[in-house]
Amino acid sequence: MWSSGAIALEKVGHRAPAESSNLTVVFVSTGLGREYALAFAERGASVVVNDLGGNAKGGGKSSAAADKVVEEIRAKGGKAVANYEAAEISALILRDRSFARTSDLDWDLIHRIHLRGSFLVTRAAWDHMKKQKFGRIIMTTSAAGIYGNFGQSNYSAAKLGLLGLANTLAIEGSKHNIYCNTIAPVAGSRLTETVMPPDLVASLKPEYVAPLVLWLCHEQCQENGGLFEVGAGWVGKLRWERSQGQIMRQKSRPMTPEAVRDQWDKICDFTDATKPTTIQGHVLSRVDAGGQVEAPPS
Amino acid sequence: MWSSGAIALEKVGHRAPAESSNLTVVFVSTGLGREYALAFAERGASVVVNDLGGNAKGGGKSSAAADKVVEEIRAKGGKAVANYEAAEISALILRDRSFARTSDLDWDLIHRIHLRGSFLVTRAAWDHMKKQKFGRIIMTTSAAGIYGNFGQSNYSAAKLGLLGLANTLAIEGSKHNIYCNTIAPVAGSRLTETVMPPDLVASLKPEYVAPLVLWLCHEQCQENGGLFEVGAGWVGKLRWERSQGQIMRQKSRPMTPEAVRDQWDKICDFTDATKPTTIQGHVLSRVDAGGQVEAPPS
Ligand SMILES: NC(=O)c1ccc[n+]([C@@H]2O[C@H](COP(=O)([O-])OP(=O)(O)OC[C@H]3O[C@@H](n4cnc5c(N)ncnc54)[C@H](O)[C@@H]3O)[C@@H](O)[C@H]2O)c1
Ligand SMILES: NC(=O)c1ccc[n+]([C@@H]2O[C@H](COP(=O)([O-])OP(=O)(O)OC[C@H]3O[C@@H](n4cnc5c(N)ncnc54)[C@H](O)[C@@H]3O)[C@@H](O)[C@H]2O)c1
Repeated sequence: MWSSGAIALEKVGHRAPAESSNLTVVFVSTGLGREYALAFAERGASVVVNDLGGNAKGGGKSSAAADKVVEEIRAKGGKAVANYEAAEISALILRDRSFARTSDLDWDLIHRIHLRGSFLVTRAAWDHMKKQKFGRIIMTTSAAGIYGNFGQSNYSAAKLGLLGLANTLAIEGSKHNIYCNTIAPVAGSRLTETVMPPDLVASLKPEYVAPLVLWLCHEQCQENGGLFEVGAGWVGKLRWERSQGQIMRQKSRPMTPEAVRDQWDKICDFTDATKPTTIQGHVLSRVDAGGQVEAPPS
Repeated sequence: MWSSGAIALEKVGHRAPAESSNLTVVFVSTGLGREYALAFAERGASVVVNDLGGNAKGGGKSSAAADKVVEEIRAKGGKAVANYEAAEISALILRDRSFARTSDLDWDLIHRIHLRGSFLVTRAAWDHMKKQKFGRIIMTTSAAGIYGNFGQSNYSAAKLGLLGLANTLAIEGSKHNIYCNTIAPVAGSRLTETVMPPDLVASLKPEYVAPLVLWLCHEQCQENGGLFEVGAGWVGKLRWERSQGQIMRQKSRPMTPEAVRDQWDKICDFTDATKPTTIQGHVLSRVDAGGQVEAPPS
């Protein structure tokens, strides 16, 4: 059941529809959002389509984009309403620049739309999710954030910030049955269209991303705090791998940069690497209560 | 040589000292920053100590913090000046709240200081680094961002945003011999002091973090785009691990959420996992120019 009491938000409006507990909500637009809306509506969910209808650089405004999706859903017998108000919402705009030429505005706009917008809309839905003891949140990061991408310092920072937010939401939500996962999609959109050959865009349909989002929003899905790459019909998962590292501190001698240099290969050697998942597995786990550094776990 | 033409910035002031190309600069404060300043100065670098001297929640202002470190450095025969101006700088403040109670201000302050501040100061130094064909940037993230931490949705988002920024700077800087690495330190500070037993704080001296920063700032160090956990004399490295994943798309049939559910174990199976490091290794690498999904690399 996707339609009972689920709030799926890839993009959730500033004002969460907290009235009904029997509502699946996806506040969406064009591109991936449109696809999610259609897929959820097809499964009986009530959908709020939320789009400012601006251009890809964050300027302008129009209600046409949202209206079109609402009509499409209704024509198929689905339930949908439009909303054009939410000024800050997780949505795609880009302002690519080499780092030196990234203006304060290039930075701020991207951060407001992608990161602050996602914070605001998720917070608006949070209490409702807690009350109904169910919530599924999907944050949309990007390979540009995970690996870096030339000319996208603003976007990569905002997008990986979303993963940081998701990491904490997964922890805070867990006991309320609110799960938060993150996807890094690749899909043809009005932005990728301009840089990819048409046959590639065709294989990167949003329809090949939406099924992952739907599954992650399902009440049976127990995945929480995960990061997934998805596109062209393929889905894979990412996690951290940590080297055993090296203890550089020696009894009654100061630790030196030269020691770090000399041990560099060892520090960066991923033989017998571990897969840390929580902050408890951080450096502190190697320090016992008496303040002694333990041998790294093997 | 650390002192010739290096700009090491864990925290670099808004106004980069672009005048001299023969200057190691660390704009710093108390805690870790103080330790870096001392260590660089000891090696002959000119140091700018930059601190607003506010309290741990981001309020107040005082010149005492910066002055004290400058005096300390000069007393040892080192070169240092103080700067109290830069209002936005990478520095530590915390405003921990459960997610529902995180106010817009809690969010904005943390993002301005940790993320936007680091952007501004790095951009200010960038052209200078390009011109002198040398730069080393150290971003300071946190385990709270990497793994999530209860009550730190604002901080974890901002801190992992820094890693996203670093990922792109590593790419853009590389051909100019500007390298950017990220550390997740654990060190006793005025903030950790309040939550850790004293003997633990003692073992988490900033002196056990600084040597890594110094090495990463060295002109011989060729590390770029790395992420390191460091504390208590231990240093380890993190990287991404990616599952082989699963192709869910079938000829002339729509991809469904049910298919994703049924293949979930396979998607999350890390047998024969790869270690992706660039955006080129993303989903797109699995799609050839003809738009066909390739078998995952083995
Ligand atoms: N398409 C990809 O390959 C790809 C890759 C990585 C990440 N993403 C992420 O996926 C998400 C969806 O991207 P898409 O490809 O569907 O983009 P898209 O351009 O097709 O759709 C973005 C929509 O957001 C709307 N929008 C922009 N600013 C808005 C605002 N302030 N308020 C309300 N609506 C606003 C636009 O009107 C547009 O309809 C984005 O977060 C994007 O960063 C996409
Ligand atoms: N100490 C740890 O265990 C730890 C763990 C993870 C990350 N970090 C990160 O390491 C960095 C240093 O932390 P620390 O432990 O040395 O903290 P600290 O509290 O000892 O020092 C922080 C300094 O920043 C200054 N500051 C605050 N706001 C400022 C502003 N707007 N402009 C200029 N100066 C300002 C303060 O006056 C203070 O001197 C921070 O980025 C922090 O997030 C620390």
